Amino acid sequence: MGYYAEPIARLIEELSRLPGIGPKTAQRLAFHILKMPADRAVRLVQAIAGARESIVYCSVCGNFTDVDPCSICSASHRDRSTIMVVEEPKDVVAIEKTRDYKGLYHVLHGVISPLEGIGPDDIRIKELLSRVSSGVKEVVIATNPDVEGEATALYIARLLKPLGLKVTRIAYGIPMGGDLDYADEITLAKALEGRREL
Amino acid sequence: MGYYAEPIARLIEELSRLPGIGPKTAQRLAFHILKMPADRAVRLVQAIAGARESIVYCSVCGNFTDVDPCSICSASHRDRSTIMVVEEPKDVVAIEKTRDYKGLYHVLHGVISPLEGIGPDDIRIKELLSRVSSGVKEVVIATNPDVEGEATALYIARLLKPLGLKVTRIAYGIPMGGDLDYADEITLAKALEGRREL
Repeated sequence: MGYYAEPIARLIEELSRLPGIGPKTAQRLAFHILKMPADRAVRLVQAIAGARESIVYCSVCGNFTDVDPCSICSASHRDRSTIMVVEEPKDVVAIEKTRDYKGLYHVLHGVISPLEGIGPDDIRIKELLSRVSSGVKEVVIATNPDVEGEATALYIARLLKPLGLKVTRIAYGIPMGGDLDYADEITLAKALEGRREL
Repeated sequence: MGYYAEPIARLIEELSRLPGIGPKTAQRLAFHILKMPADRAVRLVQAIAGARESIVYCSVCGNFTDVDPCSICSASHRDRSTIMVVEEPKDVVAIEKTRDYKGLYHVLHGVISPLEGIGPDDIRIKELLSRVSSGVKEVVIATNPDVEGEATALYIARLLKPLGLKVTRIAYGIPMGGDLDYADEITLAKALEGRREL
């Protein structure tokens, strides 16, 4: 580069590693960060460092949490007989926003993807199997409706059905090839309502 | 919100205060930051904190720098008889990338904007006046060609011309690679007015 003082060049470089942040946006963000009032900059740094320090994966469901087990897993009012399987923590947020689901979650942290070398042992399927023994009646599989999400749903269904569990898949109210995270609340609620046994 | 653990909610809030980062992008960035390898997260935090600590405004030109005076102001090969006046540090980068300009800079850190209550004393005009005494022959005003940028350019020109300086304004015209047909009337009129003999 050479157009920036070294600390600015480094800041732009680190910012441009973030998803969806190109070099131009990184430069704009860097200059904004340099011009911020000091207390705002401190807050930003502390928010990043603080989240990294205090956020862990829930040992039960795998969601991000600052208390373990997380507030959903330990909530007495949630229906412990139903577990919804999702790919990522952001999917939990998307489902929670519908206010329609009262069961528990299981975050896989990925999907089976032979092309990327991700097999069943690389995502939290074993942990799911060890959870379904105690009082769980239904497992709702809410992986994304794309090739990997479908394959993962079928794989999990084949493992769970012999255990006598009801295994359901959220309905295709979500457009195929779409991203669960980007669906609006009503579509998500409809998809939940129309879930069918696999 | 309530859908996020408090440290995540705080991180999303701080990220969404950045320019061009809406709530959805902030959530995506926050989850990405939580999933990053630890060393990358440390680098990001250190890049922000490091830039904030080591970057100051050059006491001569007002540009961001980690040494004062900045590398441009102290470079022996630059033409000290010409000063280009720009609004923001990012404009210095834009001009430097042309590799066509060899003079010095003066960063105003804003423009005169009565609507926003920004007067001549709120930007670095006094500092410019104190620089032009010693050996400066030409001041190129490169504020943006919008209402505030024009007003600021005229204001500065009126202050400097009585001092016997050559005061110039960057040319208005059709952008290179642009389409004549898509240029607005004012730009076209300005381009015509500024025509030069070939």
